[in-house]
Amino acid sequence: MIDKLRVAGGRYRPLGLSSVVIADAFWAPAMTRVREITLPAQHQQLRDTGRLDALRLDWRPGTEPKPHIFWDSDVAKWLEAASHSLAAVPDEQLEQQVDEAIELLANAQHDDGYLNTYFTVVEPGRRWTDLRDAHELYCAGHLIEAGVAHFEATGKRSLLDVVMRYADHIDAVFGLAPGQKHGYDGHEEIELALVKLYRVTGVDRYLQLAAYFVDERGRQPYFFDQEAAERGTPGFFGSRPPFDRRQQDPEPFREYNQSQAPVREQREVVGHAVRAMYLYSAVADVAVETGDDGLLAACRRLWGHLTTRRMYITGGIGSTARIEGFTEDFDLPNESAYAETCAAIGLVLWAHRMAAIDRDRRYVDVLERSLYNGVLAGISDDGSCFFYDNPLASHGAHHRQKWFGVACCPPNLARLLTSLGRYVYAQRDNELVVHLFVAGSGAFDVDGQTVTVEQRTEYPWDGTVELVMRVDRPVTFTLATRIPGWCDDPRISVHGEPLDVDAVIDRGYACVNRKWRDGDSVRLELPMPVRRCYAHPRVIADIGRVAVARGPLVYCVEGADNGGDVEHLTLPRDTMLTTAEHDDLPGTIVVKGTGAKIDAADWDDALYRDSPAHRVPVELTAVPYHSWDNRAPGPMQVWIRESEFGARP
Amino acid sequence: MIDKLRVAGGRYRPLGLSSVVIADAFWAPAMTRVREITLPAQHQQLRDTGRLDALRLDWRPGTEPKPHIFWDSDVAKWLEAASHSLAAVPDEQLEQQVDEAIELLANAQHDDGYLNTYFTVVEPGRRWTDLRDAHELYCAGHLIEAGVAHFEATGKRSLLDVVMRYADHIDAVFGLAPGQKHGYDGHEEIELALVKLYRVTGVDRYLQLAAYFVDERGRQPYFFDQEAAERGTPGFFGSRPPFDRRQQDPEPFREYNQSQAPVREQREVVGHAVRAMYLYSAVADVAVETGDDGLLAACRRLWGHLTTRRMYITGGIGSTARIEGFTEDFDLPNESAYAETCAAIGLVLWAHRMAAIDRDRRYVDVLERSLYNGVLAGISDDGSCFFYDNPLASHGAHHRQKWFGVACCPPNLARLLTSLGRYVYAQRDNELVVHLFVAGSGAFDVDGQTVTVEQRTEYPWDGTVELVMRVDRPVTFTLATRIPGWCDDPRISVHGEPLDVDAVIDRGYACVNRKWRDGDSVRLELPMPVRRCYAHPRVIADIGRVAVARGPLVYCVEGADNGGDVEHLTLPRDTMLTTAEHDDLPGTIVVKGTGAKIDAADWDDALYRDSPAHRVPVELTAVPYHSWDNRAPGPMQVWIRESEFGARP
Repeated sequence: MIDKLRVAGGRYRPLGLSSVVIADAFWAPAMTRVREITLPAQHQQLRDTGRLDALRLDWRPGTEPKPHIFWDSDVAKWLEAASHSLAAVPDEQLEQQVDEAIELLANAQHDDGYLNTYFTVVEPGRRWTDLRDAHELYCAGHLIEAGVAHFEATGKRSLLDVVMRYADHIDAVFGLAPGQKHGYDGHEEIELALVKLYRVTGVDRYLQLAAYFVDERGRQPYFFDQEAAERGTPGFFGSRPPFDRRQQDPEPFREYNQSQAPVREQREVVGHAVRAMYLYSAVADVAVETGDDGLLAACRRLWGHLTTRRMYITGGIGSTARIEGFTEDFDLPNESAYAETCAAIGLVLWAHRMAAIDRDRRYVDVLERSLYNGVLAGISDDGSCFFYDNPLASHGAHHRQKWFGVACCPPNLARLLTSLGRYVYAQRDNELVVHLFVAGSGAFDVDGQTVTVEQRTEYPWDGTVELVMRVDRPVTFTLATRIPGWCDDPRISVHGEPLDVDAVIDRGYACVNRKWRDGDSVRLELPMPVRRCYAHPRVIADIGRVAVARGPLVYCVEGADNGGDVEHLTLPRDTMLTTAEHDDLPGTIVVKGTGAKIDAADWDDALYRDSPAHRVPVELTAVPYHSWDNRAPGPMQVWIRESEFGARP
Repeated sequence: MIDKLRVAGGRYRPLGLSSVVIADAFWAPAMTRVREITLPAQHQQLRDTGRLDALRLDWRPGTEPKPHIFWDSDVAKWLEAASHSLAAVPDEQLEQQVDEAIELLANAQHDDGYLNTYFTVVEPGRRWTDLRDAHELYCAGHLIEAGVAHFEATGKRSLLDVVMRYADHIDAVFGLAPGQKHGYDGHEEIELALVKLYRVTGVDRYLQLAAYFVDERGRQPYFFDQEAAERGTPGFFGSRPPFDRRQQDPEPFREYNQSQAPVREQREVVGHAVRAMYLYSAVADVAVETGDDGLLAACRRLWGHLTTRRMYITGGIGSTARIEGFTEDFDLPNESAYAETCAAIGLVLWAHRMAAIDRDRRYVDVLERSLYNGVLAGISDDGSCFFYDNPLASHGAHHRQKWFGVACCPPNLARLLTSLGRYVYAQRDNELVVHLFVAGSGAFDVDGQTVTVEQRTEYPWDGTVELVMRVDRPVTFTLATRIPGWCDDPRISVHGEPLDVDAVIDRGYACVNRKWRDGDSVRLELPMPVRRCYAHPRVIADIGRVAVARGPLVYCVEGADNGGDVEHLTLPRDTMLTTAEHDDLPGTIVVKGTGAKIDAADWDDALYRDSPAHRVPVELTAVPYHSWDNRAPGPMQVWIRESEFGARP
């Protein structure tokens, strides 16, 4: 199945941040806003809410704010995002804030390497007693990711050394040896972090510990049962997952945290969506690093289940707030969709790792879907406000906020957007891969020579992509460029010569092998007509409805453009849909067409009557889903009612 | 506005049970099943669950079953139903069970007249300290209704005397005099019961006490606030209504129990639906008995609000389980509809009282809608199982049960069905009113002579109604027969002579005044085509959907007749709908037509694609809503998706 090679980062290794330039009109401004608006604002939030000061370990019982079990992870994710930012754009003030936070962390570390605010000051002596709920290894994982990112960005070992000491401590506590805990965390994260630490340090123990956590999970007797029995209390969350108090399931936690069975036996994506994504990301990492076919098969099986049964068209996942996660196959309600921003980010993380195993567009198509829609909707155009949950319909009450008590999503968005460069290109030997279309460049090393692939494109607004090779001397390699699944009629030419796409396509990538000279170019034409999308008939919520998409973007109708009540709109099947610019949303291409709208004015006071309301023609405007709620709060729908014909005026 | 006459029972007095014969093929068998199946089964439940034994007052702390605050009302409602049954059909065994229960109640009564199991054995000394939650006056009201029904049915005073002593005690405790409690009950019921007691005894104090409770409710300072402060505890339900634990409203109880303002100032029907209906029933009773125009205006205003904004097409009311009650205008979700059986019964009670004030079909049309649909669905065809809540759509999990821990609905159905005769006819002076079409007869007293109106009809399956007068000698009176609002083209003839309906209609009743001779007949032709019904466009849940109705019956599609998944059905707008008989449901007329059904078979594994699923023609069968779930549990929909045209095979 897979080469038993220890290729750090998978077979198709992403280019590092320092090798990628993003210089387009879509992502680059968003990344600038993250640097200039989001990161400073989040630092201020970490300060104002007490998360940074908590690291001074001077909290005393009875005083406020009391450190929370999640707090270290918020600091860690901000540190990771700030590090990614420093890798791209030096910033003295930001680096100083980073160094200060690292110094606090270093000072908070125990002599034995342990590092956790909550269990140092709030519940000292309860260390490692509530793995199911207390997020101890989860916080450790985010600290490790921050340490790796900081080292990669700055070359400094200040945080890397701290997290290696902590990882060594964890490695001593957990494992199969006598006296070690045979456990794992209720919220997965440590596993993928340890693989990252292994990749940057080369210390095999970290990979082995990640593999241990992955494989121990779900074995019987269940660790969390034993742990609860030993502890004698129900745990931080009590007897139910924190959002699931009213359920009757006698074992509500097992599927919630994916410990119902060993992952290699799991067939369905269940439970808390973020946890699931972080677990499967780690499983993919461990699979590729250890060449474990069983884990790889589990990944592919679970991927198939998720993407054909439980994923919104936006790439959002997790249908219900009740467990912040999955429910039943095809249960994808729109207005009550949870679709947590962090879960969409988790899907990007997992898809990226799957694409590092198999360079197959099935993964990157989903990555792109989630990134441009479910993820990007999580942050306002100005970088200051965030969605925690991302419904696909709203009656007008859903609106982005500046911060949340449980603040996982804002810094998670920041770390993803600051590290976006990692998702654009990959390389396997002499195969250079273009996953995403983002104007800028990627610098590859081919047989010791730097090959820079320049991308020129207006993507996602236009489907023309020109890839120009910059080489010092002619060099032979394969350029593998994704042909998105949404594109029905791709055209490709090399230096002006059309290619037969079918002849060069391999798992969704056009692969062109030749000796490339400086200035050689590949031109991709990906026509972007407005598309109508339909959901599987078993998705009850979408029956009789249509979604509008163009290129990688899913669209929606907002009240602001459509006379308020979008529930009364229908999009006739034969309506011609066209593109246009929009005064309110500069740089954005919107979709227009003649729809129909129920005219409630001709309805008298009766609640029921024997004839339906009339419909009148209306000019319908759809905007990209990611850009919704950037005006006044109002109603929105992705899935628009479809009528068979238009209003008859 | 209203005659200041003390006409017991309103201006249009219902005929008593002993004057009415129900001998049709629709209701009479249902009533027989209530007598033969439901009443004995419910007596057994009262025995098995400890409700009857609790009246022996020998419960001791720590033993099970522990009497509940609702229990006395369950016994009382069964007693009322059994009494109604005895009025129509003597039954020695039933009468003996009734007498035994009455003896238990009489023995349980305190010397001062107080009578409540819970506050005698479980919380002695806490009498009248938790009016908001403890249902003390609610239980008293049901005992009083039982006492009145028992007296009317049997002429025995055994229970009437008990409840009069209890009412006298309540009259001494509550009122405006010094030392009396200025309070009222959290669950209305005592008010309408006291009016009934007044009507049967002529004791004016009972009417005045009912009027006091109606008028005191909602005055400031709020009684329930004062009560809670005096008691020093949050009450039996704690700080939230029992089904509403997660709400943030600081005063969640006020609207919940309609005490947010005096009823004569209320403009919207809010809160717990059963409570609201019992209150408004009492308000109508007090208004007509005291000639209070302010209360009457409130009734009419609230009636308009309910029936044009917050009522399901089935006559079910109360959209949400969260408070077992009302939410927002036009918020009428189908699958999550609560539409408690008791609330539909409450609407029948209120409508009946409004029709006793104004003989106007707006009231009896709603009464009929609720009775034939929302109420009747509450009981299985065999009389053994019950719905507590009555959704208008189900994915298949909703199924009737034999009993409930909170068992209000089953005995409430029993008492309504055993007293159905009271809803058919009414009289005001020389005006004889036919409200409902039920084969059988009603015996009126006109100037000392008995006039029997015989009804011959197959209603609700056929709209032909023949009314034959039986008189000893010719007598002049007005026969006022309702022309249902659902009927577009009524025809009426008197002894073969057609009448101009428009010329004789008054507030929806065809009024024929003449000297009637024995055997004179009135023939009503109410054509019953299958109708399509549409909801107001503001009812979001029903947009693009159609309901099927015929005569007073609302229909639904069940999985059993329609290939399982009713979500995939559409009813094309131009489909001809016809009637037919049905093998599974003898005696029932079903509706058939060619619908279309999504064919999911041509859909591959993709979750989303660019073309909709095909639809194929399908023979669609709709059954009366009241008869659903009498086969295996399965999916159901009242509101069917409507397509503009059919499948194109």
